[in-house]
Amino acid sequence: MEGEKRENQNQAAEEEDQIVNPWEVAAKDGGKIDYDKLIDKFGCQRLDQTLIDRVHRLTGRPPHVFLRRGVFFAHRDFNEILDAYEKGKKFYLYTGRGPSSEALHIGHLVPFMFTKYLQDVFRVPLVIQLTDDEKCMWKNLTVEESQRLARENAKDIIACGFDITRTFIFSDFDYVGGAFYKNMVKVAKCVTLNKVQGIFGFSGEDHIGKISFPPVQAVPSFPSSFPHLFSGKDDLRCLIPCAIDQDPYFRMTRDAAPRIGYHKPSLIESTFFPALQGETGKMSASDPNSAIYVTDSAKVIKSKINKYAFSGGQDSVEKHRQLGANLEVDISVKYLNFFLEDDAELEHIKTEYAAGRMLTGEVKGRLGSVLSEIVERHRAARASVTDEVVDAFMAVRPLPNMFD
Amino acid sequence: MEGEKRENQNQAAEEEDQIVNPWEVAAKDGGKIDYDKLIDKFGCQRLDQTLIDRVHRLTGRPPHVFLRRGVFFAHRDFNEILDAYEKGKKFYLYTGRGPSSEALHIGHLVPFMFTKYLQDVFRVPLVIQLTDDEKCMWKNLTVEESQRLARENAKDIIACGFDITRTFIFSDFDYVGGAFYKNMVKVAKCVTLNKVQGIFGFSGEDHIGKISFPPVQAVPSFPSSFPHLFSGKDDLRCLIPCAIDQDPYFRMTRDAAPRIGYHKPSLIESTFFPALQGETGKMSASDPNSAIYVTDSAKVIKSKINKYAFSGGQDSVEKHRQLGANLEVDISVKYLNFFLEDDAELEHIKTEYAAGRMLTGEVKGRLGSVLSEIVERHRAARASVTDEVVDAFMAVRPLPNMFD
Repeated sequence: MEGEKRENQNQAAEEEDQIVNPWEVAAKDGGKIDYDKLIDKFGCQRLDQTLIDRVHRLTGRPPHVFLRRGVFFAHRDFNEILDAYEKGKKFYLYTGRGPSSEALHIGHLVPFMFTKYLQDVFRVPLVIQLTDDEKCMWKNLTVEESQRLARENAKDIIACGFDITRTFIFSDFDYVGGAFYKNMVKVAKCVTLNKVQGIFGFSGEDHIGKISFPPVQAVPSFPSSFPHLFSGKDDLRCLIPCAIDQDPYFRMTRDAAPRIGYHKPSLIESTFFPALQGETGKMSASDPNSAIYVTDSAKVIKSKINKYAFSGGQDSVEKHRQLGANLEVDISVKYLNFFLEDDAELEHIKTEYAAGRMLTGEVKGRLGSVLSEIVERHRAARASVTDEVVDAFMAVRPLPNMFD
Repeated sequence: MEGEKRENQNQAAEEEDQIVNPWEVAAKDGGKIDYDKLIDKFGCQRLDQTLIDRVHRLTGRPPHVFLRRGVFFAHRDFNEILDAYEKGKKFYLYTGRGPSSEALHIGHLVPFMFTKYLQDVFRVPLVIQLTDDEKCMWKNLTVEESQRLARENAKDIIACGFDITRTFIFSDFDYVGGAFYKNMVKVAKCVTLNKVQGIFGFSGEDHIGKISFPPVQAVPSFPSSFPHLFSGKDDLRCLIPCAIDQDPYFRMTRDAAPRIGYHKPSLIESTFFPALQGETGKMSASDPNSAIYVTDSAKVIKSKINKYAFSGGQDSVEKHRQLGANLEVDISVKYLNFFLEDDAELEHIKTEYAAGRMLTGEVKGRLGSVLSEIVERHRAARASVTDEVVDAFMAVRPLPNMFD
């Protein structure tokens, strides 16, 4: 029982001042998240070069920049997905979003960009869960407002380029019921109150909606939750791309799976996208200056980067030319690591910047153009996502050619 | 907050050795349930003669035997339902059953017989919840077995004579979702873990399915949970006939209702139907000799009564003629009090039996014929309930003439 031994990870994490759960990510004393410790605590595996090479070989396509650069850095049984795929067995992808804000920031796009890549190279179906019920409960939004945000966020997700013939997007408020609800009950029977309190840190003051929710996020891991898609395919495996703060949900899910006759879902997990101010956790939706939003104009993007992006450069040009930049803390370099696709150019920037031959302003300028281009492309794509397109992606329908 | 002050009733009840909750009914030291104490503890009101007279006046029909004889003995805001009804406003009825066993015993029929009476005299719609999800979780039944039992029990319920033009029966596994699920989330947000632990006595070893369930039983109290029936009728009041062990669910519901913009449901609550062996609690599904089942033959009924029905008569005929029977503990008299409709005959039996002029055997004989007749009538009615009839009652459909 992998979950059992990890049950007290939250308490343990607190003792070490590093807190990572689906609602809070905080590094020790304002420092950086220690991902090695996190892998060890959660009990997942590091995504090593052998596995990345295998993805390259099996898909015949260069691994995604997020794989090459260690953005997706951890996994659970990803090798089993690849074993099955190698034998000609398909799988399906499951990812999601809690719709708590109007506009997404670029960090929110990371799992969706990566999921699109996985869908493209493996040619597999994808289910995307919009946890409007969760956000209604945690953020104290009304049901109606949560559902409105879910649809707005769906537009941003669709704009990432998902294939409508292989993608089903659903809102919990709309979709919970039937086979999905039956699986929720089956999972709930396997999880004690003590266990969710250990995993998620719930207390007696928390409302029972929070305690009821983990099975809702668990069951899209099981093909039988989607009878219109996977009827008669109970053996289909599931791969979940997500940020590592979601691991507690799926640790719980993996414990329950074999007890109710299902495969454990596999996971491929990313680091957090850092705030402009520095790499101490995730970007914060409550501080607009901590993030670049997909609705920011090129001008705003440039200004935010210049003003807030934490620099590893030196205080004066003279000192910088002499000592060079500290790449370990430089946010512009971190961001370029996510979004500058050209490996050679990134390497060049890092070398020149570290040596002091390139100044912070130049690096920030390049980042500004990279992000503006992504955001502009996103804006154009989103503009073409009408309400009818959202309805089409969210229609409960079979996807007859989803494996072709 | 009526619930707040009652939060610790379970603990308090345990101290007094009287335990009443939806899963356990146990009197102090094998004695009788003290219903006065229960009313006081739960904070509900006694159903007095004034209220019964008012029902008589408003409906123009003699009050049901269960009202005349104190079987339904407690309530919450039943007067408000009558106030509204007097002003020409209708309401709807909500009752339910946890389908944990194949065959019902006659105690199970009590709330349904009474609900049928209420439906008939007030001419109002009725929703009947089959909590197959609950029984799947508490009794460790599979989803499929719980759903099968729900349909079997639905046949017994329908056999009680409900009007198909005013009655909607639903299984949670089938019906949870949409507006119903949205109300579940709204209720769950209003109830802390501490509160459900106080109300229901859940512990850390309990699975989270149990903690998630109370909102499922709560939300049929709100008309918006049934958009196909009550769309645009959010102001409709709800009256819940049930045994008093269900009170904790609705205490919780009534606390939540005004916080989410709904009326508090009203309740009309019954005593428990005693076991053949004596009035220490409810009949037990696990001991077939503690109850008369609706599937028992006349011969079995006669034999069970003769063998197991606890007698208040004396050890010998001589002593009995001299001292008479103790009606307070005599189960045959208790059962006749539920099911012998003729007030004069019941009075006669009680007088003669108490005076020692009637023997236990004679009383048991009369009870045997009364119960055999009820069970035979039930069996005949149930035989005509086909699967198509069950489908018709359970179809999600409007009931256009439900208030006529």
